[in-house]
Amino acid sequence: MRNIYLDYNATTPIAPSVLEATLPFLQEHFGNPSSSHSVGRAAVQAVRDAREKVAVAIGAEPEEIVFTSGGTESNNLALLGIFGTRTETPGHLIVSKFEHPAVCEPAAHLAHLGHSVSVIPCDVHGVVDPVDVAEAIRDDTRLVSVMHANNEIGTLQPIDEIARICRKHGVLFHTDAAQSIGKVPVRVDHAPIDMMTIAGHKCYAPKGIGALFVRHGTPLHRVTFGAGHERGLRPGTENVPYIVALGKACELVANGTQEESRRMETLRDHLQHSLLAAIDGLSVNGQLAPRLPNTLSANFPRVAGHLLLSRIPQLAASTGAACHSGAAHLSNTLAAIGLSPEIANGTVRLSLGWQTSRDDVDRAAELLVGAWEQLAK
Amino acid sequence: MRNIYLDYNATTPIAPSVLEATLPFLQEHFGNPSSSHSVGRAAVQAVRDAREKVAVAIGAEPEEIVFTSGGTESNNLALLGIFGTRTETPGHLIVSKFEHPAVCEPAAHLAHLGHSVSVIPCDVHGVVDPVDVAEAIRDDTRLVSVMHANNEIGTLQPIDEIARICRKHGVLFHTDAAQSIGKVPVRVDHAPIDMMTIAGHKCYAPKGIGALFVRHGTPLHRVTFGAGHERGLRPGTENVPYIVALGKACELVANGTQEESRRMETLRDHLQHSLLAAIDGLSVNGQLAPRLPNTLSANFPRVAGHLLLSRIPQLAASTGAACHSGAAHLSNTLAAIGLSPEIANGTVRLSLGWQTSRDDVDRAAELLVGAWEQLAK
Repeated sequence: MRNIYLDYNATTPIAPSVLEATLPFLQEHFGNPSSSHSVGRAAVQAVRDAREKVAVAIGAEPEEIVFTSGGTESNNLALLGIFGTRTETPGHLIVSKFEHPAVCEPAAHLAHLGHSVSVIPCDVHGVVDPVDVAEAIRDDTRLVSVMHANNEIGTLQPIDEIARICRKHGVLFHTDAAQSIGKVPVRVDHAPIDMMTIAGHKCYAPKGIGALFVRHGTPLHRVTFGAGHERGLRPGTENVPYIVALGKACELVANGTQEESRRMETLRDHLQHSLLAAIDGLSVNGQLAPRLPNTLSANFPRVAGHLLLSRIPQLAASTGAACHSGAAHLSNTLAAIGLSPEIANGTVRLSLGWQTSRDDVDRAAELLVGAWEQLAK
Repeated sequence: MRNIYLDYNATTPIAPSVLEATLPFLQEHFGNPSSSHSVGRAAVQAVRDAREKVAVAIGAEPEEIVFTSGGTESNNLALLGIFGTRTETPGHLIVSKFEHPAVCEPAAHLAHLGHSVSVIPCDVHGVVDPVDVAEAIRDDTRLVSVMHANNEIGTLQPIDEIARICRKHGVLFHTDAAQSIGKVPVRVDHAPIDMMTIAGHKCYAPKGIGALFVRHGTPLHRVTFGAGHERGLRPGTENVPYIVALGKACELVANGTQEESRRMETLRDHLQHSLLAAIDGLSVNGQLAPRLPNTLSANFPRVAGHLLLSRIPQLAASTGAACHSGAAHLSNTLAAIGLSPEIANGTVRLSLGWQTSRDDVDRAAELLVGAWEQLAK
């Protein structure tokens, strides 16, 4: 019996059609886009096509897409690139309380450099209140960064409204959309979002590729230095195969998100219902908030999440965000929504994907309930 | 008749055995190394094995290898990471006159931040004199960065001697070995090299992966911020497939460099001899210096290099470094060895690789001589 993978928020497999599009660029089309001969020109064209596809998927212009090595690099570029590396004029940054480390840590670095950083809370449902953003804005605020979907509990943030507030105050707005692309519609043409992070391996492209949407006119500085790739914002020979992969993945996203989202949501709700019905005292994080259709963050009572999962190795899932699973401390997100360490200790994140079947979620529910009964009784 | 690719210094194709090793990690083994379940553990093991292979190839310890997105990122990490991002205590950096933009540009940025930068010359043969390095060292010198092999003319720099001088003065030494790995032996256990840059796509691994060797105890700061990947020095989900690829490429390098180098050198010398014999007034850059066995930088008299190459589209080669081929200005390297703009205008770089055959170089010589005769006469 095959194993069940319910950890799509940690990473996705590469979609077969994405791999198929990528392979020729790992094989015969190996040129360097900086070369002016025909081998190089094939690479230039491939990068151009991919940039167009990423742009179309989010409602941007192709020249507004900067390819990077992943979501972490995109977030670093967005935050550090707005504040620059000269600290003569300290500025103010606003982030939410449950950002990914790829936003929290650059923010901490900016604080270390002498800038000031405000952290706005979220409510118990896992949602940031735009009013809190508005109230935190000061004269010296340069940037607000609030993620689109929380990676651990899947709650969606009101980024369009926050973007409009920022624009009204003349402040730039960045959102980390790593977790939302491919799961819900993600557009930059519905609201004045200035920068947006995309991570390939969360949307069926490989690990090691990402992009930053940078709206025309955004005063972003480069933070790495070299030859003039990506309009000078991101030097280094282009990772042509993975850029092609991200383009193809975004094409899939643009063509099929809605139907797939409904399918995942039905399966996720079924899984949630099965667990709630079988386990007395189980609670679901973000249940009352707008949420990613694939994510179920459940607090199992009277057990440790990692012990629960270790009993059922045929099910791959997380106790927290994958990036932190080595660490034993209470996750930022679970702390931000007010969970006690005791409750958070029993949290398991189940995240579904394009390959998840009804049979997978039925078996997952059975395994989880069985293991919980053995441990908690 | 197939086209001839003599632009391996711009980028190499991926070796078939490298691709074969990589594919399973683009397909079934897609886990995130940060996940603690079995899908993640397979990825952890793959990254560990690759790190070991890279280390073995250069004589390092596995924990001294930091994976990055490529040579440019490695160089940025080395330079910016030693000086840090706080500028309270300005320091002094020494670089050679013909470094790649991925070193020159971070150096310029450090100067912009208030550090001081000395640029040491090379001689007309394209070699840096270690005495010049010794004389440039000051009390506040923190780092010297001199490339191993020049990308345009292929000359090898006396990095072991420079490393020993730096160590004697208590100064750190970094070398960009992007162009030399896979062509000549590159070791960090023969001399006190503190940091060394490796670029995958110059040694038959893909574009978008690289590594920085960081000797134990080197006081390197992180320059991007996020979760604690790569011992905190380089955050972001590991690009597992490409890391596997770089490991495999380094294994090939460790097993076969010498024999392949001799073969390439024989072919390169044959090509050089053919051109010198047929074209009166042709000169070869770095001819009298220790040189990469695959590189031939030739100055064709009375023609523009780009016009020469445009006549023979079946031959892929460069007029300068690939990263700069869009730019019309005289290359740093050719200026550094004292070429006049007129001579440098006729420079063509022919760089051979593992797939280059005797027939390729014979046909290349014929095509180049034929085109030159049409243009110059």
